[in-house]
Amino acid sequence: MEFPKNRSRDLVGMGRLTIDMNANEINRPMEETRTFTKYVGGSPANITIGASRLGLSTGFIGKIANDQMGNFIRGYFEENNINTENVITDDTGAVTGLAFTEIISPEDCSILLYRDNVADLKISPLEISEEYIKNTSAVMFSGTALAASPSREAVFLAAEYAHKHGTKVLFDIDFRPATWKSKEETATYYNLLAEKSHLIIGTRDEFNMMENMESEMDGSDDKTAAKWFNHSAEIVLIKHGAKGSFAYTKDGDYFTGKTFETEVLKTFGAGDAYASSFVYGLIQGWEVDRAMDFGGASAAIVISRHSCSEAMPKAEEVQEFIDESVRKGTIKS
Amino acid sequence: MEFPKNRSRDLVGMGRLTIDMNANEINRPMEETRTFTKYVGGSPANITIGASRLGLSTGFIGKIANDQMGNFIRGYFEENNINTENVITDDTGAVTGLAFTEIISPEDCSILLYRDNVADLKISPLEISEEYIKNTSAVMFSGTALAASPSREAVFLAAEYAHKHGTKVLFDIDFRPATWKSKEETATYYNLLAEKSHLIIGTRDEFNMMENMESEMDGSDDKTAAKWFNHSAEIVLIKHGAKGSFAYTKDGDYFTGKTFETEVLKTFGAGDAYASSFVYGLIQGWEVDRAMDFGGASAAIVISRHSCSEAMPKAEEVQEFIDESVRKGTIKS
Amino acid sequence: MEFPKNRSRDLVGMGRLTIDMNANEINRPMEETRTFTKYVGGSPANITIGASRLGLSTGFIGKIANDQMGNFIRGYFEENNINTENVITDDTGAVTGLAFTEIISPEDCSILLYRDNVADLKISPLEISEEYIKNTSAVMFSGTALAASPSREAVFLAAEYAHKHGTKVLFDIDFRPATWKSKEETATYYNLLAEKSHLIIGTRDEFNMMENMESEMDGSDDKTAAKWFNHSAEIVLIKHGAKGSFAYTKDGDYFTGKTFETEVLKTFGAGDAYASSFVYGLIQGWEVDRAMDFGGASAAIVISRHSCSEAMPKAEEVQEFIDESVRKGTIKS
Amino acid sequence: MEFPKNRSRDLVGMGRLTIDMNANEINRPMEETRTFTKYVGGSPANITIGASRLGLSTGFIGKIANDQMGNFIRGYFEENNINTENVITDDTGAVTGLAFTEIISPEDCSILLYRDNVADLKISPLEISEEYIKNTSAVMFSGTALAASPSREAVFLAAEYAHKHGTKVLFDIDFRPATWKSKEETATYYNLLAEKSHLIIGTRDEFNMMENMESEMDGSDDKTAAKWFNHSAEIVLIKHGAKGSFAYTKDGDYFTGKTFETEVLKTFGAGDAYASSFVYGLIQGWEVDRAMDFGGASAAIVISRHSCSEAMPKAEEVQEFIDESVRKGTIKS
Repeated sequence: MEFPKNRSRDLVGMGRLTIDMNANEINRPMEETRTFTKYVGGSPANITIGASRLGLSTGFIGKIANDQMGNFIRGYFEENNINTENVITDDTGAVTGLAFTEIISPEDCSILLYRDNVADLKISPLEISEEYIKNTSAVMFSGTALAASPSREAVFLAAEYAHKHGTKVLFDIDFRPATWKSKEETATYYNLLAEKSHLIIGTRDEFNMMENMESEMDGSDDKTAAKWFNHSAEIVLIKHGAKGSFAYTKDGDYFTGKTFETEVLKTFGAGDAYASSFVYGLIQGWEVDRAMDFGGASAAIVISRHSCSEAMPKAEEVQEFIDESVRKGTIKS
Repeated sequence: MEFPKNRSRDLVGMGRLTIDMNANEINRPMEETRTFTKYVGGSPANITIGASRLGLSTGFIGKIANDQMGNFIRGYFEENNINTENVITDDTGAVTGLAFTEIISPEDCSILLYRDNVADLKISPLEISEEYIKNTSAVMFSGTALAASPSREAVFLAAEYAHKHGTKVLFDIDFRPATWKSKEETATYYNLLAEKSHLIIGTRDEFNMMENMESEMDGSDDKTAAKWFNHSAEIVLIKHGAKGSFAYTKDGDYFTGKTFETEVLKTFGAGDAYASSFVYGLIQGWEVDRAMDFGGASAAIVISRHSCSEAMPKAEEVQEFIDESVRKGTIKS
Repeated sequence: MEFPKNRSRDLVGMGRLTIDMNANEINRPMEETRTFTKYVGGSPANITIGASRLGLSTGFIGKIANDQMGNFIRGYFEENNINTENVITDDTGAVTGLAFTEIISPEDCSILLYRDNVADLKISPLEISEEYIKNTSAVMFSGTALAASPSREAVFLAAEYAHKHGTKVLFDIDFRPATWKSKEETATYYNLLAEKSHLIIGTRDEFNMMENMESEMDGSDDKTAAKWFNHSAEIVLIKHGAKGSFAYTKDGDYFTGKTFETEVLKTFGAGDAYASSFVYGLIQGWEVDRAMDFGGASAAIVISRHSCSEAMPKAEEVQEFIDESVRKGTIKS
Repeated sequence: MEFPKNRSRDLVGMGRLTIDMNANEINRPMEETRTFTKYVGGSPANITIGASRLGLSTGFIGKIANDQMGNFIRGYFEENNINTENVITDDTGAVTGLAFTEIISPEDCSILLYRDNVADLKISPLEISEEYIKNTSAVMFSGTALAASPSREAVFLAAEYAHKHGTKVLFDIDFRPATWKSKEETATYYNLLAEKSHLIIGTRDEFNMMENMESEMDGSDDKTAAKWFNHSAEIVLIKHGAKGSFAYTKDGDYFTGKTFETEVLKTFGAGDAYASSFVYGLIQGWEVDRAMDFGGASAAIVISRHSCSEAMPKAEEVQEFIDESVRKGTIKS
């Protein structure tokens, strides 16, 4: 995958931009949790924070509430060297989306979402700067940004600008059923965006959701990848949870990623850590499998920590973790 | 344009499916009109009725209210040999869209629309039959079907099925500002459908609306046509009102249509008559300019009559009108 | 019932203000009707037109669409000497409500309503003139005005102003299920307005609807009347269709109305004609039973004619009809 | 005020039933707060918890989300001996309302509310048990329950049941502008409920809001009290912040409450503590001024503590606080 060179920013995220309220007292149902810690959250926000920590030059296209939660998000981005020129403050009384986490055990984690009237879905086409996208090497889109108008139209316009200026379109499916009306509506818009994407990342379940109206699709990774190579895709990465991840390239290559042993605190954030480190590797010009290993190691680090965003590692940490895992023999491939 | 052969139906319409209430007492403001006559209406309905009258084998994909107005539409289609297998009856209490016409003078016509909670916008992706589209040579989409969910998603799925089975996608822009929330939203969805269309028909104003977020577009027909030939388009037809219509083909050809003198009663229905006869010509395998002349003659006939749908002429009538116009010398080119 | 004297207007209507589209070809299902005639409609509009024809000084509090239908309504009111100072023109793009009538036979009549986004339900408290109500002897409210905000709040404020200035509150229940979300919501607001009403008119079915959450009510007219005399009511009039109407007064009197033979064309408009003539009688200071007879005769006239509003008779016509019926012996009591 | 005797419950709350997220790190803007503690919240919930702590037999009429937040609320009520028979669990996907507190200084406190799609506003008339209200001496309504349907209609029905069975209607205005569409809508429904209330408690600003459409009202406490004594009111209590509270009775008495010095942590909860202790006093049969003092002391205790609900004192604590204040001379009257 060839990213355009010499642009102001390597990677810009677009989509969900919210607050995680993470349970302080864990290993119990949320009913018994009394205190929570506030972090910036949302899949594309986490990926962008991760990419910035790893050393990429980053920015974000999104909308925040005009309140203390919105201010906190903007401030946290700025502390993390994420450009906020295209982060708009809402003026309609929208709120910041929330995700309360429940960690009953490392295997039994869930999220309680507040997604009514959220600011991140209020970004409109007119608020997307063509110039900003022109000066960026790659935009990472999150599927939840397609859940409602006007954010949905803003995404399609941003993808159009990206194509026009040779900016790579990266698509993290990030499917949250609660934010959608029907699986047909969901599949329609996910497919329209996937047609315009150079990199598509998702779990097998997420790709199945996108194929729910296509009788000839049967859950086969080969068919899924082949379908998207008829459009804009160059890499299709399909995640099978504990069974590992598989990447297809338009040139016909196929890669399997390694997984790393770690002490699991919770499973949240694994996908975001993986995506940020995998894209980091691609932008460095690494081979796909080396980028996949970097992604896997980064995910292993984040799931041993309390948050998603603040837990994102630096590049040296990821490399050290890989080296250490090699020494200990705690890598599976 | 090569249409697939040997299919059950030549042309299927999809989109607005409503009732026209045409003023009986005309040449006055609607305030002074006391009686109205009821006709089936809506651009794609009119085009399909026209195509059926001309001799094509036709059908419709749409949704009607569960009331007397809906029954009337289904009955009228059946009388006109339009297949209604994929015309669904709504069960949510939706109403039939209405258009009251006002004819102050032949030059000063307007429409009063009822578009709240209308049945035609309630058709959903699950109600679209893939088999039906597979057995059809061409589907004519009307842009108003993109104005709201779930009809919007149903259109994208139908277009997807059409591509999968080699069915031609014909797109009549039919832009009605009152049914849309913003010009950005409108342009986004019109563009996504136009990308998948083999034939795009619209007025210059309608194409301008679709280009409102593209700084490099400047109202030039050449640029508009070139843009769409990068996607699926084979013919782009741009209407300039009294100045005539201009057609571009992917092969680089360019055609100008003739216009015919007629006694104008009202301007409604001109575009629908044109589209049905133009498409009729293309399906006959005629050259583009001959099809355009047939369209122009058909439009001239309809604007001299009281309704849009019921006024649609037979093929012989159109040919006679052309012959007569040649004799009288009432053709402009 | 003592009405305040020496006010600018005897009676002001408030509520539904719409267009009736009456079938010209009747005695058939609406599917087979092709032409319709346009009239002003809506229960309180009809009552007000009727009262004006009878000779009362009248006005209306309501909202009309900013289009040809709205203009027509205002013009028709003015022609009929109904004051329109407090008839506001909507500026939000609302439409005029419609009622298409179907007359299959005199016994089998129905209505197809268009009630989405209608102007009459958009009147807001700030648009109610306290001065206007202060200068009026009685306000006739229609229950459909309670179906949605802000019209609902406007009605409660108008009733408050009426109480403050000694203006009589007349309440025509006019229950249209299609305009309401649930029978509990309906009963709640109908009851709150009935508590403030001096005259309540409705069918037995309508009173039953209002009592649907009260386990001790059992469809008895005596109980219904007694309940309202605990609040503001002075007269409660309960209509039992062909069985006649029954009026209770706070003083303990009880009256039965006469019914008149007539040639029935359709049943629409009977209730509105009754209400306008009954109230006319009360305002003349007549005994309740004489006013009821006048109402019954007026209803008999209207159901023999094509429209509701335009069919409303003058006082002389009603009196002649009564006299004629006496002569012919076509009165039942 | 004479409360009915020998009923299963002294006091039942109805209305807002939510979660407070109270900042742990205080005396700073919320942007800098990282951890929050979860409490049950909402004015009528706090009042009911307070009343239960003081020793009254209590219950609640309300609706909770079908999630961990809803479960927590039900569990907390049960631990606090509040009957939850009429606390319904929502099945529509509603969420629990949230209030994040910001304590910049004791004088500068604010709240960030989440009120979109909240469970407490989804309680419907059919979910109100007439039997439950019949077996209760007094119901305390909170004005926010009037902000939307169907909760609004449920409140009016509950008040109707209360009147029917001699249950006292207590009304805590609790006006939160963010939950309402317009001040006219607000005033309309607050007034309709106040007409049916035996006790009305609010700040001067809240009463002014209720009077915003009445030209003859001018912010005078005397006029406000007089207006409500024309309806059902027996006591009207008007709070003027630091200037103290003033109570009017229907018998013509007038009382001023004492205020107590305390170490203020935050101002939240003062009103709820006051209301619970004041009503506790009335139910004990105390004179109005003694109940007011008990209210004032209770408020002084709660504003020196971190939460609203969990901070509610027992009756002994309140009495001790009063005695101590008398000894120290820290009472103002």
